[in-house]
Amino acid sequence: MKTKTPKESTTVTTKIVLPNDTNPHGNLFGGQLLGWMDVTAAITAQRHSRRVVVTASVNSVSFGSPIRESDVVTLEANISRAFNSSMEIIIDVYVENQVSGVRKKHNEAIYTFVAVDQNGGTITVPQLVPETEEEKERYDGALRRKQLSLILADKMKPEDATELKRLFLPDGE
Amino acid sequence: MKTKTPKESTTVTTKIVLPNDTNPHGNLFGGQLLGWMDVTAAITAQRHSRRVVVTASVNSVSFGSPIRESDVVTLEANISRAFNSSMEIIIDVYVENQVSGVRKKHNEAIYTFVAVDQNGGTITVPQLVPETEEEKERYDGALRRKQLSLILADKMKPEDATELKRLFLPDGE
Amino acid sequence: MKTKTPKESTTVTTKIVLPNDTNPHGNLFGGQLLGWMDVTAAITAQRHSRRVVVTASVNSVSFGSPIRESDVVTLEANISRAFNSSMEIIIDVYVENQVSGVRKKHNEAIYTFVAVDQNGGTITVPQLVPETEEEKERYDGALRRKQLSLILADKMKPEDATELKRLFLPDGE
Amino acid sequence: MKTKTPKESTTVTTKIVLPNDTNPHGNLFGGQLLGWMDVTAAITAQRHSRRVVVTASVNSVSFGSPIRESDVVTLEANISRAFNSSMEIIIDVYVENQVSGVRKKHNEAIYTFVAVDQNGGTITVPQLVPETEEEKERYDGALRRKQLSLILADKMKPEDATELKRLFLPDGE
Amino acid sequence: MKTKTPKESTTVTTKIVLPNDTNPHGNLFGGQLLGWMDVTAAITAQRHSRRVVVTASVNSVSFGSPIRESDVVTLEANISRAFNSSMEIIIDVYVENQVSGVRKKHNEAIYTFVAVDQNGGTITVPQLVPETEEEKERYDGALRRKQLSLILADKMKPEDATELKRLFLPDGE
Amino acid sequence: MKTKTPKESTTVTTKIVLPNDTNPHGNLFGGQLLGWMDVTAAITAQRHSRRVVVTASVNSVSFGSPIRESDVVTLEANISRAFNSSMEIIIDVYVENQVSGVRKKHNEAIYTFVAVDQNGGTITVPQLVPETEEEKERYDGALRRKQLSLILADKMKPEDATELKRLFLPDGE
Repeated sequence: MKTKTPKESTTVTTKIVLPNDTNPHGNLFGGQLLGWMDVTAAITAQRHSRRVVVTASVNSVSFGSPIRESDVVTLEANISRAFNSSMEIIIDVYVENQVSGVRKKHNEAIYTFVAVDQNGGTITVPQLVPETEEEKERYDGALRRKQLSLILADKMKPEDATELKRLFLPDGE
Repeated sequence: MKTKTPKESTTVTTKIVLPNDTNPHGNLFGGQLLGWMDVTAAITAQRHSRRVVVTASVNSVSFGSPIRESDVVTLEANISRAFNSSMEIIIDVYVENQVSGVRKKHNEAIYTFVAVDQNGGTITVPQLVPETEEEKERYDGALRRKQLSLILADKMKPEDATELKRLFLPDGE
Repeated sequence: MKTKTPKESTTVTTKIVLPNDTNPHGNLFGGQLLGWMDVTAAITAQRHSRRVVVTASVNSVSFGSPIRESDVVTLEANISRAFNSSMEIIIDVYVENQVSGVRKKHNEAIYTFVAVDQNGGTITVPQLVPETEEEKERYDGALRRKQLSLILADKMKPEDATELKRLFLPDGE
Repeated sequence: MKTKTPKESTTVTTKIVLPNDTNPHGNLFGGQLLGWMDVTAAITAQRHSRRVVVTASVNSVSFGSPIRESDVVTLEANISRAFNSSMEIIIDVYVENQVSGVRKKHNEAIYTFVAVDQNGGTITVPQLVPETEEEKERYDGALRRKQLSLILADKMKPEDATELKRLFLPDGE
Repeated sequence: MKTKTPKESTTVTTKIVLPNDTNPHGNLFGGQLLGWMDVTAAITAQRHSRRVVVTASVNSVSFGSPIRESDVVTLEANISRAFNSSMEIIIDVYVENQVSGVRKKHNEAIYTFVAVDQNGGTITVPQLVPETEEEKERYDGALRRKQLSLILADKMKPEDATELKRLFLPDGE
Repeated sequence: MKTKTPKESTTVTTKIVLPNDTNPHGNLFGGQLLGWMDVTAAITAQRHSRRVVVTASVNSVSFGSPIRESDVVTLEANISRAFNSSMEIIIDVYVENQVSGVRKKHNEAIYTFVAVDQNGGTITVPQLVPETEEEKERYDGALRRKQLSLILADKMKPEDATELKRLFLPDGE
């Protein structure tokens, strides 16, 4: 199976925050943003695998300062690593004030998707070959995140997660 | 400020999975479920604080086997702990097959909300007094999860997260 | 066919009133509430019958004082009686003010559903066995309502509707 | 205040039944139709009163045979009578098969609206002058329906509802 | 194949402009109106052809002064001419102020639809027989518009478009 | 007022075609695409002007072969020219088959927006400085299109539209 690069499946989408997307103080509902992230990331996973994909997990997501009604929100989704049938996708979110035009990064989120066939069975996906420095860093980080999620799900022993362990024992014990 | 119990703010909502909520294999989009979770949990946070709330973060969420079109999805949101102005909410998701009536737990998710005023400033919320065994366990877990998120955000030193540390050094060093 | 109790099919759902649900004075559209009632009641009818159901009729519905944008609306649907293939469902609606937390009953509505097969033919549903006092009252009332609707549809002679007749001749002639 | 005729406020709207409007057998949700009726009738009430209106009640509604996905649904709303601040609106629903073009009446529904000001107070609306035979019949029927609803709400004694009484005592006692 | 008249397929629909349909100044999004026009016109094309139809093109559309939140928008779609498998539909848009009741024409738009079978092949549609003066004018205009669109698409030579040519050489060369 | 280049306001958005977006043959509604184009183009116009914008007109739009359910649709909007307060925006639409990954241009559309203030008055926008060859061609074309629309609206005499005239008199009279 042919390998692919991240940029072959980059997906960008742009939204305007409408009244129904906001709470009484005019702030975007977090759930609306989570939904937009999921669709954008799913298109990237689908483009990488050319398969139907299902969301397998969402890594912890922190929201920055509130996004306001009428703000323009841009989401960019890139695949960071492919495992057997799963793909880690990182979504970067930018918010742009309508009047000032000031655009800043709002937050980022990490979703994992699995490629499936019509019976729900998993399917192998092409391996990813990162090219830029940032792509390589995110590729390495994906393995650490996978280890952490395996430990949290009781599917890996903490002492086997070499790299993670170092986080808690910084002096190298 | 008066304390409150979890059951004073429990929120239940029930959904039918419609065609537009699904991918070409008839599976519910993960993002749709994330959005439903957010609204249900936000109502719980609002009921506990009697304030407008904004989503601050989503803890890692794993999705179980795919949810199908026409399935009935029930979400129950309960507050697990209140900190100063933030509240951790746990959402339990149940899926029920329309024909067989078999209902099983699909997954759970943990969202954090912050109570805000009209200028976006944070506001103190009532403390939570857990009553049942499960409520007490979730209350204790909330502190560990807060420590982990502080470490991951570089706002706490790992060696200060006593309880978490034990996870990686099970023999008590 | 096994009988069932009302609580086996109780359905609860909770909504926030959003801008698009309201008229220029910020009041919830009645039609939006009627739609929410229908979905909630349909899930109850489906849970009782384990069949696909269609709305057969809506009994008269009165709306109380207006529901406002940002209010939290809770709907609880319970089956009151099962006839051959039809089920009467009563929906109780509660409205909760976001700030004060005051929650009061807004109104109730009565919908009738019919269980159908794929050709649209009707299907027998399990009989209902009411347990509590309120369930028994609603069970009895369901028969009176069915008689009234048969009379209004010219399918029953008024003089055969014994119980209803009494309404108009209170002194028992 | 100037009187008005029914045709000055007639409202017509036309819909296509989409996948999300239907249950797993491809039948239109009753609640969707109730919502469409409400919007169409509200426009008629608003056109008659030139005020913001709120739904006060829905008279009993029977649904005919199921409406199918892709069917074209036409709703026509006409005012049948104006009381002080309330207006009774009758909505006639027609369904048209996409392929055969056969169009038939599906059902009709009766909604009551009240004209309100910004404080929620009720406002007097123009009286209605029916012109055609059908308009006159519906005008007369509106009074009977109002009596019935007052009795059902315990706001009128059955023996004062002269016309209704006759329904149950057909030999004129 | 039987011919048809325009009035056999006239379609009317009525909308209220809701918060989510408007920009921060409270003006209806043009794209929302374009979507409403498309659905209304498609129903007319479907009624004329009794076939599934797809939008083939939109003639230039000018929007008048902004339409406001809460305005009532009425769209009336009429077929102006049928060619082999395509139909030109003209949509007239009226806007009505909620309070004053003043209703005025906002703009008109011209869409072309093609009747298709399940394989996407085009299907011949009934010819149109215009009856009123306005219908005849619109019928004639449809041919000029077709010529212009063929020229703009490089499918016709300008010198063959006799009638159009006159537009640019008014003295009849 | 500072000039701007086209790339400073380029907007990209990506959509998946869902069941509710399609007709009974599974083809995307044209009106849905027109709506997506409008939002995408409006963001570009807003980014160029840093003002609230309203859609002023849509140039003729031709749709290519039908877009199917589950296809991924990408829209890219670029400003082609700024006049006083109006901006011409060209939207290029690409469609990508989910399985094969084949992506091809579907069509393009041209919308014009006007920058407005809160009273609806028009506001001057920055001039555009095209950079690439394609940008320059589109910049020149924008003037021809403006002339044509002025003629069609009877606001310019055909003989004054020098460049357009040539279209119909190719030998240069």
